[in-house]
Amino acid sequence: MKKIKHLRCSKCGKTFDEDVMYHCDECGPIGTLDVVYDNAFIERTLTKNYLINNNRRDIWRYMPILPLEGERGISPLQVGWTPLYKAERLEKLLGVRNIYIKDDGRNPTASFKDRASAIGVAKAIELNKKIICAASTGNAASSLSGFAACMGIENYIFVPANAPEAKITQLLIYGSNVILVDGDYDTAFDFCTKAVDKFGWYNRSCAINPYLVEGKKTAAFEICEQLNFDVPDKVIMAVGDGCSISAVWKGFEEFYALGLIKKVPKMVSVQAEGANPVNRAFRSGKKCFDYVTPNTIADSISVGIPRNGYKALNCLTQSKGIAIDVSDEEILNAMTCLARFTGVFGEPAGVTAFAGLVKLIKNGEICSNESIALIVSGNGLKDIKSAMKAVIKPDKMKPDLEQLSKYIKSNEK
Amino acid sequence: MKKIKHLRCSKCGKTFDEDVMYHCDECGPIGTLDVVYDNAFIERTLTKNYLINNNRRDIWRYMPILPLEGERGISPLQVGWTPLYKAERLEKLLGVRNIYIKDDGRNPTASFKDRASAIGVAKAIELNKKIICAASTGNAASSLSGFAACMGIENYIFVPANAPEAKITQLLIYGSNVILVDGDYDTAFDFCTKAVDKFGWYNRSCAINPYLVEGKKTAAFEICEQLNFDVPDKVIMAVGDGCSISAVWKGFEEFYALGLIKKVPKMVSVQAEGANPVNRAFRSGKKCFDYVTPNTIADSISVGIPRNGYKALNCLTQSKGIAIDVSDEEILNAMTCLARFTGVFGEPAGVTAFAGLVKLIKNGEICSNESIALIVSGNGLKDIKSAMKAVIKPDKMKPDLEQLSKYIKSNEK
Repeated sequence: MKKIKHLRCSKCGKTFDEDVMYHCDECGPIGTLDVVYDNAFIERTLTKNYLINNNRRDIWRYMPILPLEGERGISPLQVGWTPLYKAERLEKLLGVRNIYIKDDGRNPTASFKDRASAIGVAKAIELNKKIICAASTGNAASSLSGFAACMGIENYIFVPANAPEAKITQLLIYGSNVILVDGDYDTAFDFCTKAVDKFGWYNRSCAINPYLVEGKKTAAFEICEQLNFDVPDKVIMAVGDGCSISAVWKGFEEFYALGLIKKVPKMVSVQAEGANPVNRAFRSGKKCFDYVTPNTIADSISVGIPRNGYKALNCLTQSKGIAIDVSDEEILNAMTCLARFTGVFGEPAGVTAFAGLVKLIKNGEICSNESIALIVSGNGLKDIKSAMKAVIKPDKMKPDLEQLSKYIKSNEK
Repeated sequence: MKKIKHLRCSKCGKTFDEDVMYHCDECGPIGTLDVVYDNAFIERTLTKNYLINNNRRDIWRYMPILPLEGERGISPLQVGWTPLYKAERLEKLLGVRNIYIKDDGRNPTASFKDRASAIGVAKAIELNKKIICAASTGNAASSLSGFAACMGIENYIFVPANAPEAKITQLLIYGSNVILVDGDYDTAFDFCTKAVDKFGWYNRSCAINPYLVEGKKTAAFEICEQLNFDVPDKVIMAVGDGCSISAVWKGFEEFYALGLIKKVPKMVSVQAEGANPVNRAFRSGKKCFDYVTPNTIADSISVGIPRNGYKALNCLTQSKGIAIDVSDEEILNAMTCLARFTGVFGEPAGVTAFAGLVKLIKNGEICSNESIALIVSGNGLKDIKSAMKAVIKPDKMKPDLEQLSKYIKSNEK
């Protein structure tokens, strides 16, 4: 494809011709690949004028810098161009002048992962692949499942058996072949990779397939455009495998290289205390990841082995970023606080970035005049069991006005 | 307000000056009111050109024909302008040329009801009301809750104690005062009405507050615009209280009166067999509603007393519409079929309109060359328990390739 220059290993930097490959031959699976575009070619079409005159409000408005030949594999499901809210009530509460919330729970299957699946399915169709598969903690799975259903593509999905019921239900409703792996996400991921080798399926796993982050980077493009190309000082994201934050960073870098924005943000990686391999590695300055069994309520980022860890480390280093860990309690508090001050209900991993913001402000690491954007990566409806831990369900009430009056009085105290 | 001519009783036709009133003084609570606009005034601003040049993609693009003075109460939550999909794979499956699916599960709190709550909250703010309340089977509740949270308005919500957990959780996460009524929707509705009388709250219940349907009608406007003003032959909707279908009908009527469209569609009311008072009344030709205890999996339309029954009957009569009942089994089948052929996962009431379409085609009541639009009114994630009834959860699998090979072979059979 003319617009793509080459693929480049995120670990050693070695470059490769574009082809269906998943990782660097020298570094092995941890050497995941980045798609590098021919900027001289792209800047001829992707100009500010092109964007301003583009009526399409989904990720396909960025077609000149997406890794697809044409529109054949594009699903009709409307993905991306999710709302970016200026959260005025939160700004007052937290004493920070500009807080922007990007609600990616508004995507077709209710998560940020839809940006990647839209590309994954389109690419599989372009390559005439008959079966797609993925390993996932849940959202990538239900997302692939929805897009594959829409386009009528057979798919196999490997999820840990303890994934939230809503996510498993989505898979079954969409008619995927669901492999409920007896083990955690890391086990499911390895099992899926073996199956791909054996059966020759197309692997949508975002950590492995270099084209997937290309979908995710569109969130950065949208933030730029929605803020009229005035880039925030910091962009905060929850981090699991490391794909999403590095994808969004890649988006900012590409717009910067194309001259569409004048600066890039610092990226902030928020991980759960019980699943923080990327943050540990960044803080230690070591270029490797120690395994600790993951343990957090935020299932979507409950990762022991960060499959795209090098991309995430690169992003933090290059953007002079920050790594911060939050507890499950801080995540649950973030869930109610975000919902009550913005109307945006996120799942645990979905509000983890916000939990990080609250903590950074408390620690004095964010000034009141900074502008901050954060991405809510998944809808709260995806994990009601966890949400219930953040609230207390009231008792039933008989339809009796006196009882109600008592309740109202007790509220006023 | 200049643009509003008067309010009109949906039962007897008596007109009233605009004021905060909920129903006709002669007909009582069943005489719900319609907002009637001054068309001569409105057609000066709301022209086809105005719409074409309007960049706003939410319900507020229709401000000239919405019952608000200004923008003071408008929440930043992006509501409406949900996608309308041409469902090509469904068209092939069902042998009908044009099927359009409007996915209103993509609204901020994941249901069609957000269109109404956005107006309800804005109106309450315009009227300087401090507390809003609503009775709801779930979606109107969580919707009001989300919009009120976003704007920082205190609210009391009356829901039947057996409402789906996800919907109750939304309320609690958003910080509403939740009254879990020991009884069904009808009981919760009456209790809420009594509380309004006693405490002077603003009542968002859609069946009672004439301004709420004004939000819902925007779905019709969007369908017109999204189809380039080429109105479908039939528009199919699930019916509970009767507000939603009559609101959408009102939208088509208003666009027709303004000369923006050349015809109006026939409206199709789909009710669950176990909760079909509107359809029974329409078929019998009687202008009254017999009470039968409601019984259906589709909680959002599980209604025994249709609070906006007359509006719904008017809509069916005026549009020369159709009433059809579907079983819970047909609803569950519709859920998987719709998801597998379009990627849209709806809750039981959300797919009830689609179940109606399938049945009408089976009965020969829809021709292959008709164009059909239907609204998916709520996201499937809102009621995972019901969705689980439509599928079979697989057993866990050890990460073992031989076991996987066996599974694949059994799939191929």
